[in-house]
Amino acid sequence: MFDLVIKNGKIVTAEHSYHADIGIFGEQIAAIGTGLSGRREVDAAGKLITPGAIDIHVHLEMPIGNFVSTDDFFTGTRAAAFGGTTAIVDFVETQPAETMLDALAARQSLADARATIDYGLHMTIGPADIAKLNQLAAVADAGCPSFKIYMAYGLRLHDGELLQALQAIRRVGGLPVVHAENWDVITTLMQQHLARGNTTPHWHPRSRPELTEGEAAGRVIDLAEFVGVPVHIFHVGCQSVVARIADARRRGLPVTGETCPQYLLVDDSVYDRPGVAGALPVCAPPIRPRPEQENMWRALADDHLQLVTTDHCPFTPAEKATGLDDFSKIPGGVPGIEARFPLLYTFGVRAGHFSENRWVDVACTTPARMLGFARKGHIAVGYDADLVIFDPEKTVTISPETLHESAGWTLYDGMTVRGYPAMTLSRGEILVEDGAFLRQPGRGNFVARRIQ
Amino acid sequence: MFDLVIKNGKIVTAEHSYHADIGIFGEQIAAIGTGLSGRREVDAAGKLITPGAIDIHVHLEMPIGNFVSTDDFFTGTRAAAFGGTTAIVDFVETQPAETMLDALAARQSLADARATIDYGLHMTIGPADIAKLNQLAAVADAGCPSFKIYMAYGLRLHDGELLQALQAIRRVGGLPVVHAENWDVITTLMQQHLARGNTTPHWHPRSRPELTEGEAAGRVIDLAEFVGVPVHIFHVGCQSVVARIADARRRGLPVTGETCPQYLLVDDSVYDRPGVAGALPVCAPPIRPRPEQENMWRALADDHLQLVTTDHCPFTPAEKATGLDDFSKIPGGVPGIEARFPLLYTFGVRAGHFSENRWVDVACTTPARMLGFARKGHIAVGYDADLVIFDPEKTVTISPETLHESAGWTLYDGMTVRGYPAMTLSRGEILVEDGAFLRQPGRGNFVARRIQ
Amino acid sequence: MFDLVIKNGKIVTAEHSYHADIGIFGEQIAAIGTGLSGRREVDAAGKLITPGAIDIHVHLEMPIGNFVSTDDFFTGTRAAAFGGTTAIVDFVETQPAETMLDALAARQSLADARATIDYGLHMTIGPADIAKLNQLAAVADAGCPSFKIYMAYGLRLHDGELLQALQAIRRVGGLPVVHAENWDVITTLMQQHLARGNTTPHWHPRSRPELTEGEAAGRVIDLAEFVGVPVHIFHVGCQSVVARIADARRRGLPVTGETCPQYLLVDDSVYDRPGVAGALPVCAPPIRPRPEQENMWRALADDHLQLVTTDHCPFTPAEKATGLDDFSKIPGGVPGIEARFPLLYTFGVRAGHFSENRWVDVACTTPARMLGFARKGHIAVGYDADLVIFDPEKTVTISPETLHESAGWTLYDGMTVRGYPAMTLSRGEILVEDGAFLRQPGRGNFVARRIQ
Amino acid sequence: MFDLVIKNGKIVTAEHSYHADIGIFGEQIAAIGTGLSGRREVDAAGKLITPGAIDIHVHLEMPIGNFVSTDDFFTGTRAAAFGGTTAIVDFVETQPAETMLDALAARQSLADARATIDYGLHMTIGPADIAKLNQLAAVADAGCPSFKIYMAYGLRLHDGELLQALQAIRRVGGLPVVHAENWDVITTLMQQHLARGNTTPHWHPRSRPELTEGEAAGRVIDLAEFVGVPVHIFHVGCQSVVARIADARRRGLPVTGETCPQYLLVDDSVYDRPGVAGALPVCAPPIRPRPEQENMWRALADDHLQLVTTDHCPFTPAEKATGLDDFSKIPGGVPGIEARFPLLYTFGVRAGHFSENRWVDVACTTPARMLGFARKGHIAVGYDADLVIFDPEKTVTISPETLHESAGWTLYDGMTVRGYPAMTLSRGEILVEDGAFLRQPGRGNFVARRIQ
Repeated sequence: MFDLVIKNGKIVTAEHSYHADIGIFGEQIAAIGTGLSGRREVDAAGKLITPGAIDIHVHLEMPIGNFVSTDDFFTGTRAAAFGGTTAIVDFVETQPAETMLDALAARQSLADARATIDYGLHMTIGPADIAKLNQLAAVADAGCPSFKIYMAYGLRLHDGELLQALQAIRRVGGLPVVHAENWDVITTLMQQHLARGNTTPHWHPRSRPELTEGEAAGRVIDLAEFVGVPVHIFHVGCQSVVARIADARRRGLPVTGETCPQYLLVDDSVYDRPGVAGALPVCAPPIRPRPEQENMWRALADDHLQLVTTDHCPFTPAEKATGLDDFSKIPGGVPGIEARFPLLYTFGVRAGHFSENRWVDVACTTPARMLGFARKGHIAVGYDADLVIFDPEKTVTISPETLHESAGWTLYDGMTVRGYPAMTLSRGEILVEDGAFLRQPGRGNFVARRIQ
Repeated sequence: MFDLVIKNGKIVTAEHSYHADIGIFGEQIAAIGTGLSGRREVDAAGKLITPGAIDIHVHLEMPIGNFVSTDDFFTGTRAAAFGGTTAIVDFVETQPAETMLDALAARQSLADARATIDYGLHMTIGPADIAKLNQLAAVADAGCPSFKIYMAYGLRLHDGELLQALQAIRRVGGLPVVHAENWDVITTLMQQHLARGNTTPHWHPRSRPELTEGEAAGRVIDLAEFVGVPVHIFHVGCQSVVARIADARRRGLPVTGETCPQYLLVDDSVYDRPGVAGALPVCAPPIRPRPEQENMWRALADDHLQLVTTDHCPFTPAEKATGLDDFSKIPGGVPGIEARFPLLYTFGVRAGHFSENRWVDVACTTPARMLGFARKGHIAVGYDADLVIFDPEKTVTISPETLHESAGWTLYDGMTVRGYPAMTLSRGEILVEDGAFLRQPGRGNFVARRIQ
Repeated sequence: MFDLVIKNGKIVTAEHSYHADIGIFGEQIAAIGTGLSGRREVDAAGKLITPGAIDIHVHLEMPIGNFVSTDDFFTGTRAAAFGGTTAIVDFVETQPAETMLDALAARQSLADARATIDYGLHMTIGPADIAKLNQLAAVADAGCPSFKIYMAYGLRLHDGELLQALQAIRRVGGLPVVHAENWDVITTLMQQHLARGNTTPHWHPRSRPELTEGEAAGRVIDLAEFVGVPVHIFHVGCQSVVARIADARRRGLPVTGETCPQYLLVDDSVYDRPGVAGALPVCAPPIRPRPEQENMWRALADDHLQLVTTDHCPFTPAEKATGLDDFSKIPGGVPGIEARFPLLYTFGVRAGHFSENRWVDVACTTPARMLGFARKGHIAVGYDADLVIFDPEKTVTISPETLHESAGWTLYDGMTVRGYPAMTLSRGEILVEDGAFLRQPGRGNFVARRIQ
Repeated sequence: MFDLVIKNGKIVTAEHSYHADIGIFGEQIAAIGTGLSGRREVDAAGKLITPGAIDIHVHLEMPIGNFVSTDDFFTGTRAAAFGGTTAIVDFVETQPAETMLDALAARQSLADARATIDYGLHMTIGPADIAKLNQLAAVADAGCPSFKIYMAYGLRLHDGELLQALQAIRRVGGLPVVHAENWDVITTLMQQHLARGNTTPHWHPRSRPELTEGEAAGRVIDLAEFVGVPVHIFHVGCQSVVARIADARRRGLPVTGETCPQYLLVDDSVYDRPGVAGALPVCAPPIRPRPEQENMWRALADDHLQLVTTDHCPFTPAEKATGLDDFSKIPGGVPGIEARFPLLYTFGVRAGHFSENRWVDVACTTPARMLGFARKGHIAVGYDADLVIFDPEKTVTISPETLHESAGWTLYDGMTVRGYPAMTLSRGEILVEDGAFLRQPGRGNFVARRIQ
């Protein structure tokens, strides 16, 4: 007698689809079989059962410059759950006077109070952290074996620091996850544009040309090859980067990359929208011309890119508007934590870019395996009962009102998807059912990850 | 209450490894869970549970020239079962006056009487079959959606015929599986060598240089791209072919390739062994110089090649010896149906070339998916209970005596493997246990395959 | 005191441009200097002085099926001279009962009687010539070290024959020049189109898709690499071939390629012209869609292709019309021997695709060096005084009337070029001056070539 | 009646070899012909006549740290002349308070007093020069259209500065010439090695791994592509760089590269020589393992690299010895200005790596054309009579004694070359004859170059 049985659904994993019941006992999948019975039974006939989606790249209540990203660990993880996402990886940054473990504890304490789903944390290695690289083993042991490296912004590492960081990550068996842009070139182009009076968001992507993404990605791949460490490239939006990742993979190097819905579904004409509407989509790397969308879909299908994240980092229109006179001051980031999984189903699977199994792979299974969630991302006995009952026929037109994100706007406003979560479970508990969120803040746990 | 429960094993699939019990009811996996109980229970503690291995490229009791390959559907499938292989795909050839369906029925009838494990059949398209291409839909409907094309030997298709065959296969949604060698060049080189008195097996690989494999593979890939059909390259033994497959895959083409143990574990010095010993390893494409072994292992690890088969096609030493005066008359083919799965474990997984999951992938799961075995190659509810209880510590030194193949010799003679099947199950029945084969000829079924 | 001095011109070679006088004594350039004086002096102020252009791929009075190409060695070489071409290479084919040397002598005798400019001959190796490969040394010694190989048409070699031909050419230090198309695939596509009633010239390029060019070029490059012999690819019209040539060159292989004006200046819409107009442009490989023009220009600029020829092979509209009901019966070939050099100047140099030096390189110097004209293709002391005084401002609108070809039509009808020969010299003799042809048939000599 | 006639020699240009006399009038080649006569006649029977060699990368009396390179413009150019080099390009660096034109004038004044052969100057753009980029047009107009950029050392530009420099060079139609190494990574590796007590020259190449060359070259190629400017990569010593140059060229980008004798003829075992002997060869990029030699020769033959320079920058053993306790303090640079041209003949032409024409191309003609010497690098009327009468049979064993460089040591000590200049002429004057230097310091002129 199981606590909960999901009956009659079509189980969709990264590799196979088949019909069976899922028996949940406590927090985990206890059995997959036929004719299972439980204290509660949910009929999933006609539905897909997928692993809970995992978004390994989100920024909740994250301070950036003068602002803090608008979703906190409660609103952010609640929105995630509505969309079928049951685990995230957020970030820790360490203050100069702080140890990495202290920074980690502080960030965990913040998240533990509010998160509604399980979460992991990437440890950021900024320039001030180069002196702390001997702390990496402790951080990895504490369950944070992935390390965020910026090649842009104030937190960027110069190449010598980058080398040291990669060497240190290699020593602890960790995974570097990298924001790859050539900041020196970008800031120079920004200054050139601003000096010419080119101040509107139109000039945002023109200050960050594709080549600055490609060059930086190529550089960190080169360095990672030299050091002998894997590397994951964050938020790939153009072929210039894909080509370098594909090249490296063809040579057998452990290089991976991700893209995001903003690069798959939107083009750079958004920066020409009037007023604050043109400022809202400012994010980095920027959104590219339309042909790059097709490039990114193809890269996912051909396994030149391995997963999809959101880089969820929302700011309100008022915050965005502060940079209307100078695009370089617009706080960068777009929301997306909620709709990723259904967007990928409609525009990826239904549109024929890839199969339902590849959908689960890029949104659930590969994120879990790559980032070291040992018991998530898959439907098998012993795995956490993080599950989505996905109604392939449910139609939703996306808008700020249908979403539960707090930014008040969405890039996907007006897009209609066919296929949406009907129910989301986390460790055996039903989080979302019939459009209602059923649980309290703080139930989410920090997950100590191990990278294999 | 299940008919049979395999308890306490470590389930190894193409993507994950985890511990659970497997409950079998009738012929299928009915449940995966913990604490399952059944009428019979097998304790698999310390063992790996894998899907039954699948060998999609074997030739049993196949007439080739004056000889017939020595293993029939009984001895061949029994040997397969000892090694953990629970499904094979063999071949049908159609006589000129025959329809393809008649040829299929005849071959099925032969196999049904003797096979001990399930099997599928590739339909061969020879030159005389070009006039019968309108029969392909019926053949595919009958469960044979994969079509063997020779670019070498008497059955080879010229390029125009090859084009027509690919077009016809495309119309029925089938998969061409291709022996790619440039026969015209090879026969010319053979004649040149023989004319110079170069008649020993030493000259066999020198008559079939790597380029003749690479060129032919590139040619059929080009034609398949033009037609818009996937293509699978058989028995890849050298980088010249791998490079073309990898190129095509990078461009997103549905091209796949396989290699075989003879290309992974043996080098071309075998052709210099004295007397008949040098003739035994004659197969086509030939076994290559040692560096190609590393190339093939790497190609499997990097997914430039997707699966491993055996091209099992045994002849006795006496038969091989008939060509000692003229290498071109040696009947071509080597045995291997039995040891493939454990050889890959020891020399692939233990040697660090790839993980235990990739092992299952290349030997079980991808073969099943690519060739359209809907209910095999994976461990999940509803799948056939084709399973191997694999003892990772069992040590076996391979020799004709430890094997159950009928050729009386093996390329792998003297190699010691650590890891071997302890028990093999087919559709819920125990075939092999404690070194004993427990079932009768003819229990194996033809499997109607569908390619997706 | 020189026989003739060309004064004050700008000498343009493949590498440099500079001003100097050219002193001619007898048939050769005797001096390059300033203030030279001669019995006759030609003022070339404002003009370019180039080497005489060389067209290594023409078919004069060549029997093809039921027809003979319309220009004979007189009208063809006269037209060539009007356009600044002072040497050609035509072809010899050997009858089954004939020796190659006899065939060569017969062709020379025909040409010697009529040619007005110097010429060389490629020896064709057809299937019946495989038995005569031991004659190649004598042919090369006789000054024909380049060997034409067809991969299409009745004269095509199968791959084994191709291998033997390449081996034999290697033994004599010769150069294979290859018509690369996959004839088996092409004839199959032709039959398919004709069977569907697709009989108009529109279906000509659709029966010879780019891939059939690329595949065949790749195949002969592979075989040439295996044999260790250079190879020159004739009449390249699409990127599918360029990519293979560029790949081979990048790997350091001695592979070269040429394109022709019909691939640089015309697109495949010509096959949709009504009536016989659509049949006139039928040639093989066919003319491609417009983007390939840019590809070919770029390939010349980037040295992925090394020279430009015409494949001049004219037929009259009446002859072309015989295939109006069946495109496969249209005699293939287009005229072009006259206008190549000025067309390349206007549409190559003036349009900015390459420099005047590259123009001379692809039309004069590289053809001479590659094909072994020891004393042609360059302006230096001791070289034949084959020269063009090219007026860069002379404007000509091309039409059958302004040309001296005999086909009665031209693909370039209506194109206006700026830049045209004002005078053409061959071995010190003025052939063309003020639009008049001044010499008699038969003055042209056979040139014994040596390939280095 | 010419001032000087070189009779009966074999003229070797980048493209052709032929026999003729050369008539010199004043400083230039006035005629090439047969039977020329002059006030002085030199019999060159059995000799090769080549253009004077050009070395576009030398550092004479250049201050580096605490030292000044030991050859001044007199000893350096004299040594050059002995080896057949008749033009060099050296460097100018601008002091912070100085204008570029002032710096140029000062450097010219230094050189004018001492140079014995003609010379040009590259203008260096250091970080302090970014504020002076509007002076580039004047510098280019003054005849210095090539601009040195360091990606290493104190003079290195950060990427944003590099971008600005490339943009400014593009505006003036100039050519960036780049020292490409990743300095940040190199200094980090240096510190790591030194911190471990790895202080000997053995650790010099290990602090500058191939990847740091390749990455930096790739980066500047990327940026140059973005800006739309050509780029020349200095002193290429490993395949990691060649691959990036070849890739770029294949895509049609105007990217070029050079190598130097130290990378062609020596391997990194020299750093393991005892005492100061191991310090002498310290230069950057470092000398690589032996297989890279073959890579560099092949790159020259295949035109992946276009020219050969020396990067002549000599220091005495005493100066080199100052860094014996810390390899990072060894003044970097090796001598080579004298022997380049004969070394390339013996080890390039005689050894079969390329033809005598390619030898002239990489050492004379391409350097002149690329760097904008309008009247040098070629043998034709109107060009400067900078000529070498090269005796292909003269045998010299290289040693500090046979050379005229001032460093007192040479990397090529003990190598025997067959082929050496018998006479060197500069603008019609005989500089070196019978082993004697015949002219005075200061006869060399600054050459105002224009890049086309």
